[in-house]
Amino acid sequence: MSGSQRVRVELASRSYDIVAGNGVLDDAAAWEGLGRGVQALVVSNTTVAPLYAQRVSDALKTRCSGVAVLELGDGESHKVWGSVEAIVDALLARGADRASMLVALGGGVVGDVTGFAAACYMRGIDYVQVPTTLLAQVDSSVGGKTAINHPLGKNMIGAFHQPLRVIADVDTLRTLPQRELVAGLAEVIKHGAIADDDFLAWIEANLALLLGRDAAALQHAVVRSCEIKAAVVADDEREAGQREVLNFGHTFGHAIEAGLGFGVWLHGEAVGCGMVLAARASAALGLIDGDRADRVTRLVANAGLPVRPPDMAVDRWIELMRHDKKSRGGSLRLVLLDAAGSARTRAVGEDRIRDLIGAALR
Amino acid sequence: MSGSQRVRVELASRSYDIVAGNGVLDDAAAWEGLGRGVQALVVSNTTVAPLYAQRVSDALKTRCSGVAVLELGDGESHKVWGSVEAIVDALLARGADRASMLVALGGGVVGDVTGFAAACYMRGIDYVQVPTTLLAQVDSSVGGKTAINHPLGKNMIGAFHQPLRVIADVDTLRTLPQRELVAGLAEVIKHGAIADDDFLAWIEANLALLLGRDAAALQHAVVRSCEIKAAVVADDEREAGQREVLNFGHTFGHAIEAGLGFGVWLHGEAVGCGMVLAARASAALGLIDGDRADRVTRLVANAGLPVRPPDMAVDRWIELMRHDKKSRGGSLRLVLLDAAGSARTRAVGEDRIRDLIGAALR
Repeated sequence: MSGSQRVRVELASRSYDIVAGNGVLDDAAAWEGLGRGVQALVVSNTTVAPLYAQRVSDALKTRCSGVAVLELGDGESHKVWGSVEAIVDALLARGADRASMLVALGGGVVGDVTGFAAACYMRGIDYVQVPTTLLAQVDSSVGGKTAINHPLGKNMIGAFHQPLRVIADVDTLRTLPQRELVAGLAEVIKHGAIADDDFLAWIEANLALLLGRDAAALQHAVVRSCEIKAAVVADDEREAGQREVLNFGHTFGHAIEAGLGFGVWLHGEAVGCGMVLAARASAALGLIDGDRADRVTRLVANAGLPVRPPDMAVDRWIELMRHDKKSRGGSLRLVLLDAAGSARTRAVGEDRIRDLIGAALR
Repeated sequence: MSGSQRVRVELASRSYDIVAGNGVLDDAAAWEGLGRGVQALVVSNTTVAPLYAQRVSDALKTRCSGVAVLELGDGESHKVWGSVEAIVDALLARGADRASMLVALGGGVVGDVTGFAAACYMRGIDYVQVPTTLLAQVDSSVGGKTAINHPLGKNMIGAFHQPLRVIADVDTLRTLPQRELVAGLAEVIKHGAIADDDFLAWIEANLALLLGRDAAALQHAVVRSCEIKAAVVADDEREAGQREVLNFGHTFGHAIEAGLGFGVWLHGEAVGCGMVLAARASAALGLIDGDRADRVTRLVANAGLPVRPPDMAVDRWIELMRHDKKSRGGSLRLVLLDAAGSARTRAVGEDRIRDLIGAALR
């Protein structure tokens, strides 16, 4: 396998590499230094496991003392405690000790659940992320955020627990349903919008290649997204401040996901629409001009993501947004864009948010 | 309130004080600097809450923006995910944000469950330990180990999450059932056995005062235990090595608890008996002489703790001990005493453990 790239996430003793490229899934170089002589449990789902679990298992068998595969159900509805319990049960049934390793093979749900199980099992064991969706490769597998959902809010229960490595095989994106590929582009666009105007322009120029799954274009999108995210995470691992900018579009997005029921809109679809609303809020507050908000809206729309929010009562939007983890002392806080091409979190009055949602729903 | 003492747990940015004394529960000085302007949720149980929740709430109301109390059921059977969920539900129902604070008012179960909920809620919020049992005051409330149980093993799911402070009111020990006071003494004895021969001798000399709940004696036992534990934890927060010595007696003890069903024997009772077995193992391996093992046995017995293990088949003991978190690659590891009055973890052959248990059961 040639042409793979590495992105370093600098977190002192918890630093790790993201390896991105075609065919890295079972490449010996990608796995080098991991899991020697320990028990490994590959956690995947019923969709991804038949495609890739055997290759990952074979790669692990050359180095681990034992390898097993656990298949969770596919979809956001499985991002719950029951899935964590299933992982813990599988580990205990095999007598897995503190030196054991989990491998998350799948999308964001598998990665978040497996990472949380790794954070909790015997108070913390190692894990490796092997993301197989664009969304997971550019976002959820990087940065150590792990979580499960609660009926009242997404990712309400979780831990910061960094993986030992992220192995992102862009070749696996060939089997991804188009809807999921598009959803992943939302986070790619987000990284351009909050941190890198040149990258945003590159996405605009290469959107057709990305949608057509050009391998080189996808690899660049993954690597540049990971570089941007890695830099933010290195500065603020536990989201005490700056890391919140990665939540651009997510306060509205989480409200959409929770309001419609998790999984009705894909996370990326909700974030796409959320970015449109957050860009409009940024313009309404005079932080960016209307052209820039329109540019975000156009790119989201051209990617095939929804720009019109779902029809929920404004009171319901506000109620759902209050559950956002960024809210403080009752005031709503949004990540907003500014003219310099970056982003920051600001408290925004409820009335203003009501007006904005009202206008978007008209 | 006078005569309280402070023990510092040195953990860099996560350092905190243990405040121990009579009446510190609702003492303004004990709570100084905590929870100003945030929402607080006091988690207790149906036994402790009627006794002390009002006083703690009143103390918190002078500083927090809102205070609520949640009562869990009493006992080890409540050290499960359902209790964590109940805490999360209560927090979300009140719109508690990341600045919120949990207060664990009760024994080890309340402290471990509440600490784990604090570790997981929105990926980590603050919490304060207000231990009301001797066991929690001398051990479980200090050091940041939080966990829930699994049918296959105690504390299998958890996190390292340090409290902001530990407020140990020895006055609350007056309402403790005698059986629980005695169980707490097991951990006090443990601290003497693994780290401080003078303290061990002090316990022997003051056992009657401790069993009679002399306030000064109890305070000294709590403070000295916390000092010993704090020093160990400061050197090895995440139990990479030396912290394991705090598990003296616990490998056998956990097997007893799991084998009989959690809660049949109190944790301290199981640890008391486990220390006797571990001391005998230390003598059998020639690390200490028989007199020292007898001394531990005698002190455990005089405290009113069981020295004879429950009647479980030897195969069952081994199976249960294999689930211990210290085990590595299939070999059993025990914390053993040495002649210098300290302790360390060693791999011990299964045959030797079988012989030892067999002899103890005869």
